[in-house]
Amino acid sequence: MKIAVLGTGGGGRAHAAKLLELGHEVVMGTRDSQVTLGRTEPDFMGIEPFGQWLADYPGIDLMNFGDAAETADFVINGIDGANALGVLTDIGEHLAGKTVMDYAVPFIYNPTQAHPWPTPWGVMPALDPVDSDSLGERIQRALPEAKIVKACVTQEQETVVHPKAVADGDHTIFIAGDHDDAKEQVTGLLQSYGWRDVLDLGPLVSARGMEMYSHMHSAIQFALGGARFGIKVMR
Amino acid sequence: MKIAVLGTGGGGRAHAAKLLELGHEVVMGTRDSQVTLGRTEPDFMGIEPFGQWLADYPGIDLMNFGDAAETADFVINGIDGANALGVLTDIGEHLAGKTVMDYAVPFIYNPTQAHPWPTPWGVMPALDPVDSDSLGERIQRALPEAKIVKACVTQEQETVVHPKAVADGDHTIFIAGDHDDAKEQVTGLLQSYGWRDVLDLGPLVSARGMEMYSHMHSAIQFALGGARFGIKVMR
Repeated sequence: MKIAVLGTGGGGRAHAAKLLELGHEVVMGTRDSQVTLGRTEPDFMGIEPFGQWLADYPGIDLMNFGDAAETADFVINGIDGANALGVLTDIGEHLAGKTVMDYAVPFIYNPTQAHPWPTPWGVMPALDPVDSDSLGERIQRALPEAKIVKACVTQEQETVVHPKAVADGDHTIFIAGDHDDAKEQVTGLLQSYGWRDVLDLGPLVSARGMEMYSHMHSAIQFALGGARFGIKVMR
Repeated sequence: MKIAVLGTGGGGRAHAAKLLELGHEVVMGTRDSQVTLGRTEPDFMGIEPFGQWLADYPGIDLMNFGDAAETADFVINGIDGANALGVLTDIGEHLAGKTVMDYAVPFIYNPTQAHPWPTPWGVMPALDPVDSDSLGERIQRALPEAKIVKACVTQEQETVVHPKAVADGDHTIFIAGDHDDAKEQVTGLLQSYGWRDVLDLGPLVSARGMEMYSHMHSAIQFALGGARFGIKVMR
């Protein structure tokens, strides 16, 4: 399967590296590939410049967003929540008929603060939309011909691609979406990552709960002193 | 310990019955005890009239909210999220210095709909406050001399008082609050209910995540066909 990972942050890199390891053809998408490759400083999250990372993965091609989406059969949205809707809408013609696995959380950046992600104990930046709508639903409404599957929201993406790093993989990952065939594809992908408990939360409206869980995730992570963890549905 | 359970719905009843079984002195609070005892029809959730339920628990006294709070050492807020802040503010003088364990979720009722809780698949009614504030924090600000501990939000209260009914008790319950002595009291109470994994999520700001988890809880419950379940933090 030819897979496009849109976004070059830590999450996108985790998926791309894992997909390459699993034998897929992998392209990554960014706003302007020359700008992204030209960066020499770590970003505000402290992760290494993309070009430096990419040097270790010679099989991965970097393209502009639209070209990456166009060339792929399956798309992973790893663009940050503040920018995802705008970018995906702009390249919508290249996403028609395709499954888009979306793990973005719509955090609001606060550009008036030195660090764009102020994180008081136990909460992340505010969400927009929240409660009566979700980013996943907004993306689906903007792209009626694409098949959006919300997934992987409730873990760090490093854990998503290496589930066995926590409790030997004995935890749960959630998906939601309005297209059953797309959810089957995503379930298969997650199983290939090593997930044994992929719980389908039904239609895309459940993306609200998945995105709103971000504050709970953050609070648990602070409580555990920053340790990796997973959530298991016990039934 | 003399414990007041405020509210006479299913959650309050579950706590009161369990506390009586554990040997505590239990009083329950309601807006007007004569009105509550005079009801003969099931409420909109379909639960039996309170007087009928109470007949099986002769050790429990029903009082008006203020009297119940006044007589107790420890208070459990089981008033619904739409009314809790108003009631607790009204009886604030009786709560000073006391621990108040609060499990309310601030769902917004929609009085224009026949059923006051419209629940599309996977989501509960909207929340107010949400995201940048929480009901728990609002109650604490309204009652600066009380010690609010948010707890028991992430399960049905029947499961809270009978944790072993799910996965033999192998799941996690969360607490948050700004008063360590009050959190110790609540932890002790939850352990007496049978909880082995009580995870302290730190200050009361974490109540945001706990309340916002309600949509996720609802989505999981729908996905499981309404079955009881628990969440376990795997680390």
